[in-house]
Amino acid sequence: MPAQDRSQQTLAFFDAEHSADVVNARMGTDISPRFREVMTIMVNHLHAAVKEAKLTTEEWMAGIEFLTKTGHMCTDWRQEFILLSDVLGVSMLVDALNHDRPEGSTENTVLGPFYVSGVPHYANGANICLDGKGEPLLVRGKVTDNDGNPVAGASIDVWATNDDGFYDVQQQGIQPEHNLRGVFTTGADGEYWFRTSKPRYYPIPDDGTVGKLLAALGRHPNRAAHLHFIVTAPGFDTVVTHIFTPDCRYLAEDTVFGVKHSLIADFQQITDPAEAEKAQLPSPFWQVEWDFVLAREEEIQRIRAAKTTA
Amino acid sequence: MPAQDRSQQTLAFFDAEHSADVVNARMGTDISPRFREVMTIMVNHLHAAVKEAKLTTEEWMAGIEFLTKTGHMCTDWRQEFILLSDVLGVSMLVDALNHDRPEGSTENTVLGPFYVSGVPHYANGANICLDGKGEPLLVRGKVTDNDGNPVAGASIDVWATNDDGFYDVQQQGIQPEHNLRGVFTTGADGEYWFRTSKPRYYPIPDDGTVGKLLAALGRHPNRAAHLHFIVTAPGFDTVVTHIFTPDCRYLAEDTVFGVKHSLIADFQQITDPAEAEKAQLPSPFWQVEWDFVLAREEEIQRIRAAKTTA
Repeated sequence: MPAQDRSQQTLAFFDAEHSADVVNARMGTDISPRFREVMTIMVNHLHAAVKEAKLTTEEWMAGIEFLTKTGHMCTDWRQEFILLSDVLGVSMLVDALNHDRPEGSTENTVLGPFYVSGVPHYANGANICLDGKGEPLLVRGKVTDNDGNPVAGASIDVWATNDDGFYDVQQQGIQPEHNLRGVFTTGADGEYWFRTSKPRYYPIPDDGTVGKLLAALGRHPNRAAHLHFIVTAPGFDTVVTHIFTPDCRYLAEDTVFGVKHSLIADFQQITDPAEAEKAQLPSPFWQVEWDFVLAREEEIQRIRAAKTTA
Repeated sequence: MPAQDRSQQTLAFFDAEHSADVVNARMGTDISPRFREVMTIMVNHLHAAVKEAKLTTEEWMAGIEFLTKTGHMCTDWRQEFILLSDVLGVSMLVDALNHDRPEGSTENTVLGPFYVSGVPHYANGANICLDGKGEPLLVRGKVTDNDGNPVAGASIDVWATNDDGFYDVQQQGIQPEHNLRGVFTTGADGEYWFRTSKPRYYPIPDDGTVGKLLAALGRHPNRAAHLHFIVTAPGFDTVVTHIFTPDCRYLAEDTVFGVKHSLIADFQQITDPAEAEKAQLPSPFWQVEWDFVLAREEEIQRIRAAKTTA
């Protein structure tokens, strides 16, 4: 539309009452309809928030400086904006919006920034705790479909911090390479098992802007103790999830809101030395039985299609 | 509150329906009440926007990458987040929310990123167009209070791009230092006048993420032609504003939404050579008469107090 025509529009000039409409009316006609939809919603809520908060010029400037410093914290190995999204619950929200599954399926939770691909594949039973720190743990269970049928050949990618609260990639040269990481594969009966150490809580990196934000909000930076998993099998929807220990003091206040009721596992301390010998672990040791329930991809497609037409 | 108590709360675990409440419930009790208020509103609208848009994981990641790159564009001399705020109309909104004035007062508009302090003070009549480019312009008028009384000793700080569309600070070593900048002072009659060149439209810096965003939105990066002013006088509310030429093709679509009806000035082309001689400008030349109306600080305080109690 040429400038002369636009100047006739009521919305051409800025006006605080209709500010978001003025901004959105400026979009061109020949743009991605989905981008138009998303940006319209973002601009509407951004303007509504500024108005509702009656943001002062100084507060606006503090916001600009926060975003700038957050950007400056981001490097190839650190993503402060993802951390920000995590602590504001946005990552969990996006995950929830995009992972509707049939009742009974294992739920997703956040991937987190410490996943590493290309780690060793082990036979069931291997011990991935290479530094020997922490309380020994046996993890075992099976992978099934929604009808309880075993899924053979499912891949179970696991990772966790060591007992000092750091991932191997945060302590390169200090921890053994691939400490507390490995990929296991289910047998014909869908079963898997491996040895590791009991997870403990740990703080997210809090020396940046997100750490300062948490402090100003009166929040601690700790994640509830968990093991990370990615479970994949041909024809099934990939599950990115954790299991949580029930006794962690931060269970109810995980700083990235990753805890779901369905992901709290039953960690049992086993004191029978015979059991320890069988598990090839010192006595006492911890044991958790955990089954993953995968949804078939066609079922996921059916749910998404139903949602879109709803 | 200790972890045991919090774990009893319904809102302890994340749930997409109440996601913003879950996040906001995590704030500590001993924090700034205003920070709590602002963050609660921001988190509410952020979550509402993500839900309304049904943001996909890929779109969320595109947002993270956009913010990261925008942060990486920011340097000591370039503020891409302010530019983002400008093109999304947020800067104008914050300005509007914070600059209520009595009817008839000169309205504010955006400061923009090219203001420089410590520029030369000139006697009225000086020509600030040091590179001689563009069409000559005489600017004259007076500064008054809301009752029309002249304000003597008011300071008028003016800046503009040259006829190539760049500020001196964008072309250091190419333009003369302080080209098209200067501070004038009103006499006892409140009058001021100076010579310059007629402003032209120009693009905001569009080689960064904001430029890419504008392109994706089908928007151009141009600002409507204007002169910048900061007008100050002891006892009066400082005015940060522009005057716009009425004939600019981008008047109705200024990319930062800075145009207000009340700030469009009457630029007249003067063809009488005698007038040109009097103005010490070549013939023909442009002339604009523009009065600034300042509000008394106590009046501003009264308006703000009334708003707060309303």
